[in-house]
Amino acid sequence: MGVAGVEPIQDVAHLAHVEIRTPRMDETLEFLTTILSLQESHRAGPSVYLRAWGDYYHHTLKVTEADRAGLGHAAWRAVSPQALERRVTVLRERGWGRGWVEGDIGHGPAYRFVDPAGHLMEIFYDVEWHEAPGAVRTRLKNQPHKRPLAGIGTRRIDHVNLLARDVKANRQFLEDCLGFKLREHIVHGGHEMGAWLSVTPLVHDIAYMHDRAHADGRFHHVAFWLDDYGDLIRAADILKEAGARIEAGPAKHAVTNALFLYLYEPGGNRLELFTGGYLIFPPDWRPVTWTEEDRDLRVWWGGDLPESFFTYGTPAVEPVKADLPA
Amino acid sequence: MGVAGVEPIQDVAHLAHVEIRTPRMDETLEFLTTILSLQESHRAGPSVYLRAWGDYYHHTLKVTEADRAGLGHAAWRAVSPQALERRVTVLRERGWGRGWVEGDIGHGPAYRFVDPAGHLMEIFYDVEWHEAPGAVRTRLKNQPHKRPLAGIGTRRIDHVNLLARDVKANRQFLEDCLGFKLREHIVHGGHEMGAWLSVTPLVHDIAYMHDRAHADGRFHHVAFWLDDYGDLIRAADILKEAGARIEAGPAKHAVTNALFLYLYEPGGNRLELFTGGYLIFPPDWRPVTWTEEDRDLRVWWGGDLPESFFTYGTPAVEPVKADLPA
Amino acid sequence: MGVAGVEPIQDVAHLAHVEIRTPRMDETLEFLTTILSLQESHRAGPSVYLRAWGDYYHHTLKVTEADRAGLGHAAWRAVSPQALERRVTVLRERGWGRGWVEGDIGHGPAYRFVDPAGHLMEIFYDVEWHEAPGAVRTRLKNQPHKRPLAGIGTRRIDHVNLLARDVKANRQFLEDCLGFKLREHIVHGGHEMGAWLSVTPLVHDIAYMHDRAHADGRFHHVAFWLDDYGDLIRAADILKEAGARIEAGPAKHAVTNALFLYLYEPGGNRLELFTGGYLIFPPDWRPVTWTEEDRDLRVWWGGDLPESFFTYGTPAVEPVKADLPA
Amino acid sequence: MGVAGVEPIQDVAHLAHVEIRTPRMDETLEFLTTILSLQESHRAGPSVYLRAWGDYYHHTLKVTEADRAGLGHAAWRAVSPQALERRVTVLRERGWGRGWVEGDIGHGPAYRFVDPAGHLMEIFYDVEWHEAPGAVRTRLKNQPHKRPLAGIGTRRIDHVNLLARDVKANRQFLEDCLGFKLREHIVHGGHEMGAWLSVTPLVHDIAYMHDRAHADGRFHHVAFWLDDYGDLIRAADILKEAGARIEAGPAKHAVTNALFLYLYEPGGNRLELFTGGYLIFPPDWRPVTWTEEDRDLRVWWGGDLPESFFTYGTPAVEPVKADLPA
Repeated sequence: MGVAGVEPIQDVAHLAHVEIRTPRMDETLEFLTTILSLQESHRAGPSVYLRAWGDYYHHTLKVTEADRAGLGHAAWRAVSPQALERRVTVLRERGWGRGWVEGDIGHGPAYRFVDPAGHLMEIFYDVEWHEAPGAVRTRLKNQPHKRPLAGIGTRRIDHVNLLARDVKANRQFLEDCLGFKLREHIVHGGHEMGAWLSVTPLVHDIAYMHDRAHADGRFHHVAFWLDDYGDLIRAADILKEAGARIEAGPAKHAVTNALFLYLYEPGGNRLELFTGGYLIFPPDWRPVTWTEEDRDLRVWWGGDLPESFFTYGTPAVEPVKADLPA
Repeated sequence: MGVAGVEPIQDVAHLAHVEIRTPRMDETLEFLTTILSLQESHRAGPSVYLRAWGDYYHHTLKVTEADRAGLGHAAWRAVSPQALERRVTVLRERGWGRGWVEGDIGHGPAYRFVDPAGHLMEIFYDVEWHEAPGAVRTRLKNQPHKRPLAGIGTRRIDHVNLLARDVKANRQFLEDCLGFKLREHIVHGGHEMGAWLSVTPLVHDIAYMHDRAHADGRFHHVAFWLDDYGDLIRAADILKEAGARIEAGPAKHAVTNALFLYLYEPGGNRLELFTGGYLIFPPDWRPVTWTEEDRDLRVWWGGDLPESFFTYGTPAVEPVKADLPA
Repeated sequence: MGVAGVEPIQDVAHLAHVEIRTPRMDETLEFLTTILSLQESHRAGPSVYLRAWGDYYHHTLKVTEADRAGLGHAAWRAVSPQALERRVTVLRERGWGRGWVEGDIGHGPAYRFVDPAGHLMEIFYDVEWHEAPGAVRTRLKNQPHKRPLAGIGTRRIDHVNLLARDVKANRQFLEDCLGFKLREHIVHGGHEMGAWLSVTPLVHDIAYMHDRAHADGRFHHVAFWLDDYGDLIRAADILKEAGARIEAGPAKHAVTNALFLYLYEPGGNRLELFTGGYLIFPPDWRPVTWTEEDRDLRVWWGGDLPESFFTYGTPAVEPVKADLPA
Repeated sequence: MGVAGVEPIQDVAHLAHVEIRTPRMDETLEFLTTILSLQESHRAGPSVYLRAWGDYYHHTLKVTEADRAGLGHAAWRAVSPQALERRVTVLRERGWGRGWVEGDIGHGPAYRFVDPAGHLMEIFYDVEWHEAPGAVRTRLKNQPHKRPLAGIGTRRIDHVNLLARDVKANRQFLEDCLGFKLREHIVHGGHEMGAWLSVTPLVHDIAYMHDRAHADGRFHHVAFWLDDYGDLIRAADILKEAGARIEAGPAKHAVTNALFLYLYEPGGNRLELFTGGYLIFPPDWRPVTWTEEDRDLRVWWGGDLPESFFTYGTPAVEPVKADLPA
């Protein structure tokens, strides 16, 4: 937090977009647009830029063809040009910076950096807002786009979840270099097994979970928001009939207090459909710590999370034995 | 926004609580606790302190016996002691300050001020968090209290809505002195008829609507959040069978994009049950302006808002003719 | 109920389908298939046969091009060939019969008859079940078709509502000639203003409401079922953004205890989206009578029904003054 | 079907009530009334009579103190006195009859019989309807009682599920002696593992499932209906915070197409909360057969059913090895 003095200051505004890599570009796109109702904003080279109907910017999900599934990068928007500069200074000084890129379709110059686990991230300020063409412009002026007629109707990006060998190191990196606040974490025997952080009142904009495979830079999932419990149930029906691979849910997390459904897109990346949860407004939030005593609450209700949830990430690696109590 | 320089800075964290006055204390309390599921935190003198099951502090609604219904005050929490000082300085300099009070049950020293319409407000930093006693403590550590078994189950305070002769003056006061951001407003023939503002990503923490009665300091409503569309529908059934006075809804607003139900508590104050809506994360939000062309969208769908919605506030006044196009 | 002796016997199984007429065939079809998610089973001459994804037979809605909007006919399925014969005998003897027709696409020989208000009806036994082609066949063997990806997703036909000069005469016709049971009715000053009847446990398979225009054979609406409150709310959003003409709702009826949304299809016929309600299993149901004392309950909650609900039917007629207290 | 000739005739109207036995009377009652919102109609001797707010008769659940948990009896209402006589004749002739009893609180003379698995059942015609006292009488005249303010708000009894060594024999008994219709069944290697039957359009009023313990007369569960998906989700939250023992769900069955939640009441009997599903109106329904190929569909979505679901019934017995493929 240090840079601005003793007072906390919010320099990172929110999660702007996530890039995922897929070895099955056509199937991934077909699935995301047809079933999840994401809309194509642009195509360029090996990438397609997508957005949900309630997202305000040019895109929130970039899908890039690649040999293996996994994270491309996660991008944060700064609250101001000055905030961007402050964060770049810190990231560079601490050695996490990888330099400026000119930007991309949909946003301006971005500063690249990595987290301790090696996930590539970016931060930028200038951004292109989505302007809905006439036929899909809604009279609801506070809504960027008409609700699509087809598919699950995912409304907006919610958060990203990454795997890390050392959850604590990555959590502290977010706190120290980017001003994130720890909202909840799981601590078993002194080891931080998972951490949920945000700069917004969302219970998490990002989470880290322990990678039992001891790998670096792996991706667990990106989540999209649905408005209503019934939307999640309808989504499960649609996914099941479409032959999609549901991993778990609908069910409810104890951590985050939210309803979830995990699925794999055809390229192998895990996605989450997410609703419920709670908002955190107090500036002095005291992080919630889940310990061994809460082990029976891996879900609050609904079917338990399968083993794959704790071992599978993208890119996939050879399974290794868990090194920490799970 | 001046005080901290060219950059916007968030000094006000969120709406902490609202005080309403009621001439029918017993009936108001009975209704709020039995039907709306609010819980009593404390009683002192003419006041009872209530909270919803998802509220984190000692109370979010203070109910005070009085001759007439209306607003007692609205209270904001600052993000830090320094932020509190900065805001007090500004408020005092601009002439809106009314001085410090020692605090109240549930929070520390508070600085009192009025808005241009004369509504009493407070800002403070130190606050008492709610600690649920054993029987109502939940294993969901991120939830301050068990969900109550009885009633509608309103989850948390959401926003306050005030009437003002001059919406624009009050809106600008919030922007200039407290750093609020304008999210949406209604402008008819150059006259600002309503304004929705927030410091949080909620589409509004507070709204001002034009008081056709030309009165000062009147109260329109305080809103409580429900999680799910079905909760709102169940609430309507419960209210109707309980003989509660529903004014409008369930229906959906165009402004705020949210589902609503308006009702009167026995003391005559209007309350809202609220769900849906949208969250605003971009730091450079461009306020949505609703004009004469949107007049047919007083509701997005559902029964139209009745005349009372536009004329009734507390304390009630003799109706006067509307001075502006409605 | 006489024909089978002192004991009631159920000869009519359920509402099989409804035929509506439209002067705007293309727009009507486009709307029904794109927005309401009905699916085309067949086309022949001036008619297109549609079904919802949860309907078991070849079609439940036949749409026929015509000069004016209105009812084509309503069709009932008999519980057995013998039941069909019994009903034909009664209808013929009482003078309501209009003779056998060879059948239609999707069902076998049908006996035509009219009700006292002149609405054309049919009863048949042999019917063609829907067989979903491979791509839309679901592994849910108890579900006739995959849930469609697009549109509101109306699940099945629910009931038909007809206008009649003399509600009581038509209600008694259904009881005496077809074995329907009166479930609820509205009686004002001794005049039956509306009657809801069924042969199934649904609160109504058919309703009659008083036609203030004193016309004969007019159509009020056909209703389709949605599974969940949230489905109805999502439907309202979709309809509104599609520019559909919503007449009333979402709101809740006192009569039938169900949630409703009324809309006009582009050809001018009224449709209803319907969910909730209750099921009637007791064989000796005592009809619910709503009187003048219940006038304030035209809706249970939600916006009141507009005047058009009480005066508009298809085909449209010159409005006349109400002849009975409303 | 035979008794009335070649035509099917419906003599059994619906499931009237179920009696369960509990070794923990006080805790069972406390749970059923406080959490499940059942209401006490009467107490007599070792029994308490309960009903849900949407049930029309005096009671739908009778709870009787006993040494061990399990079924007391299941009671069916006949459609008429004549229908009752017809069924008594058949049951007596086939050897299943156990004689008349004078009746019970809430209904008239009842004929007792057993199914092949030894479950005690009754059939009667005369019944006492519930008359809500003033304070809980609702202006919704089609609703027997106000919705209770507290608890999950289960609306009405839905069905009963029994364990049997020989599913097919019991299924055929219901068809032959009582006129039930087979709606769905599971057949593995020629063995009927489960059968779902009804006399109403509900997908089942009663089900039999194979008892792997080879025991006689065991009880699997009685189900209560909730109106909305959101109600089921709220119920899960309430149950979990109340420390209730949830066995499975919320999730969705493939068989019956319905959403479920299974739980144990404190006395050890399994209960189900149930919503969704589908209604069967065609008189010539072709039973749905689930085979080995559908084994992966033990649930349609949501966590899989635990082993206990297939082995635990009341009274509990020593577990034995499954005798048939499961």
